[in-house]
Amino acid sequence: MNKGNLSTESYKGVRDFYPEDMAVQRYIFDTWAKTAESFGYERYDASILEPSDLYRSKGAVNEEMVNEQTYTFTDRGEREVTLRPEMTPTVARMVAGKRRELKFPLRWYSIPNLFRYERPQRGRLREHWQLNCDMFGADDFTADVELIALTHQLFLDFGATPDMFEIRVNDRQEMSALYNSLGIKDQSVITAITRLNDRKNKITGAEYETALEEIIGDTKLTKAVITIVEDTTGTNQVIDGLRELGIYNVRLDRTIARGFDYYTGTVFEVFDTSPENNRSMCGGGRYNNLTAMFSDDTISGIGFGMGDVIMRDFLETHKLLPTHITETAPCVVIIPTDQKLNLEAQKVAHAIRIRGISTTTDIGTKKIGKKIADAVDRGARYTIVVGSDELQSGAFTLKNLAQTTEITDSLENLLTHLITNN
Amino acid sequence: MNKGNLSTESYKGVRDFYPEDMAVQRYIFDTWAKTAESFGYERYDASILEPSDLYRSKGAVNEEMVNEQTYTFTDRGEREVTLRPEMTPTVARMVAGKRRELKFPLRWYSIPNLFRYERPQRGRLREHWQLNCDMFGADDFTADVELIALTHQLFLDFGATPDMFEIRVNDRQEMSALYNSLGIKDQSVITAITRLNDRKNKITGAEYETALEEIIGDTKLTKAVITIVEDTTGTNQVIDGLRELGIYNVRLDRTIARGFDYYTGTVFEVFDTSPENNRSMCGGGRYNNLTAMFSDDTISGIGFGMGDVIMRDFLETHKLLPTHITETAPCVVIIPTDQKLNLEAQKVAHAIRIRGISTTTDIGTKKIGKKIADAVDRGARYTIVVGSDELQSGAFTLKNLAQTTEITDSLENLLTHLITNN
Repeated sequence: MNKGNLSTESYKGVRDFYPEDMAVQRYIFDTWAKTAESFGYERYDASILEPSDLYRSKGAVNEEMVNEQTYTFTDRGEREVTLRPEMTPTVARMVAGKRRELKFPLRWYSIPNLFRYERPQRGRLREHWQLNCDMFGADDFTADVELIALTHQLFLDFGATPDMFEIRVNDRQEMSALYNSLGIKDQSVITAITRLNDRKNKITGAEYETALEEIIGDTKLTKAVITIVEDTTGTNQVIDGLRELGIYNVRLDRTIARGFDYYTGTVFEVFDTSPENNRSMCGGGRYNNLTAMFSDDTISGIGFGMGDVIMRDFLETHKLLPTHITETAPCVVIIPTDQKLNLEAQKVAHAIRIRGISTTTDIGTKKIGKKIADAVDRGARYTIVVGSDELQSGAFTLKNLAQTTEITDSLENLLTHLITNN
Repeated sequence: MNKGNLSTESYKGVRDFYPEDMAVQRYIFDTWAKTAESFGYERYDASILEPSDLYRSKGAVNEEMVNEQTYTFTDRGEREVTLRPEMTPTVARMVAGKRRELKFPLRWYSIPNLFRYERPQRGRLREHWQLNCDMFGADDFTADVELIALTHQLFLDFGATPDMFEIRVNDRQEMSALYNSLGIKDQSVITAITRLNDRKNKITGAEYETALEEIIGDTKLTKAVITIVEDTTGTNQVIDGLRELGIYNVRLDRTIARGFDYYTGTVFEVFDTSPENNRSMCGGGRYNNLTAMFSDDTISGIGFGMGDVIMRDFLETHKLLPTHITETAPCVVIIPTDQKLNLEAQKVAHAIRIRGISTTTDIGTKKIGKKIADAVDRGARYTIVVGSDELQSGAFTLKNLAQTTEITDSLENLLTHLITNN
């Protein structure tokens, strides 16, 4: 055995979840699930391993990502495998695979982990988890309204108020119509403008203008495009629909583009309004032909994704993370006074927990005072000391750690007391 | 776009979880979590990506597995990465990494997905999920008793009765002492016998005897070893302790070995007693020096793992899977009579769901009768039809699908009714 020479570090760019972080993660996932289910979305999942071809089809995903940013390897059977970098191709594959049996409109959600091979930076690890909600088989604009309302409700269900975030909506089809009205009709030019818009808030105004003119090749037309893109006064039927639902922290933003090429209509992003954390937190959009990779039956869809790291940042920035979620403590800790009484302690613990009350034993070699202090630290509610006196007399003491009160009685009566008070 | 030529199949040997399978998976995971937490175990997690060295250290894992059965690849930074084939090295790494801060005895559980590159067969996919429970920093035999009691309780919490499964316990240290008493003292010979015992129930008695004699090189000694291994009459302090806790479906089985070389004391497996499914379902054991790979401070531990596929097989064999878990239906389905009323339907749905009652809309183009039939099929409890008459009069009808009763009233009053009755 090579003693002591192996690192305890995790692989670069991924996280270990010790219990206190896991408790936060579970709180986020449970809240996501609750909101999605309140809208009637059903949970699905798939393996992180996908055939690489799923990401290679033209138009499926951002090409840069496939070529440079995925974990792709060849398995021992000479199959090319990719660790999924996003969930949309997987859900499109699953929906297309059972399109004859599934009932539309179909509302699905999932909380997958996703992998991107990129330089680790704030909020962009190599592995992260993402809530994905998708609705398939509804072309109607009210499907877009519903999905954005779901995104809105997600934030409210964490205790956020509407002033803490803003939803910005755009529509790629409307943008194409506006470009067409200026005489820009070449689809590759429109795609290039769309991709540039997606980066607009990461570059300066001058850089944007230079890059735009390079795409368009005409100064006057460039100015006209900038006028359109920077107009914030308009609205559209999705935004109007959201207002009818009572959602007002929403506005038109013609710069919203989204990175993926597969979006065809509505696109939206949610921004944190806090000056410390002012950035896009999540987004999504409508794709009318994603399942076309698999079959001639095209199925329309609209979906969005929200990452766990950005969610946690938002909750921390706005002080919305409840403190109680780190309390994963058992209700009762049984403390033997001596190692020889460990089995007696286990017997007492087992009798309590099979009645539905979480119970553990502190069978360590520490002194009783230290064991009680540890139980308090951990957030346990009660202790019962098991010593030879207690075993001989049959009278045990249930100590209530928060109230610092205690009751001495038979185990049977203490159990009844615990069941009544929990 | 390459139309229709991409397969909708998942990667070979992994599973897609459509909502009905996902519901079963969540039921299993939730029950596992509940049992583990009732024993005071805290949840942790880590990435599936681990540095390959974690599995390479001598003694860490079964060598065959590392060499031939893992997904291992080199990343673009020339780091060797492995998709974790089991959780024990990861948990040992995490515990060793924070050994100065953590409080012992430490009880942790996790439900990771694990990857093995092997030929897919029943219950042995390339990816599966596994409950892992571990206790660190307690050498006492009552820690072994507790962990086996937890395993026992897991089955009871799914509604199993003790006659449906049997726990078989052995002890590697006791086995070594028995081999030593016969004059077999060479550790490599003992390891070879242990590995052979692990395969004993997969081969015939004659094959076992031949293989054993090949290891030992002596016919008389081989017979003596067989007598020891096949003795089922004994007991040990762990088994006696379990009986004191009221657990009687447990017995000594000297053939229990477990595959991994790192076990040093108690080893155990749980067998299904059903003749259709009679096999080992899960197991674990004590390892006294696993963290020694990382540091000179050795921390003892005992752990076990239970796979999702085998758990589901057991529940199906014994008819323990509840039927209600496939009902992931929303409580209320709002049905517009016309596509033009979709937004009105979305408004009604949103008003109900923000009051905490899961609600969806059927904004499809189907006829009303079909929409109601779909709501029934899906297991929804109520429907509300939204048509121009309803919108004009302000009187809507709440149909109770199970009781086939209905109430007509204002939306406000229907909402009150729903909240009162849910």
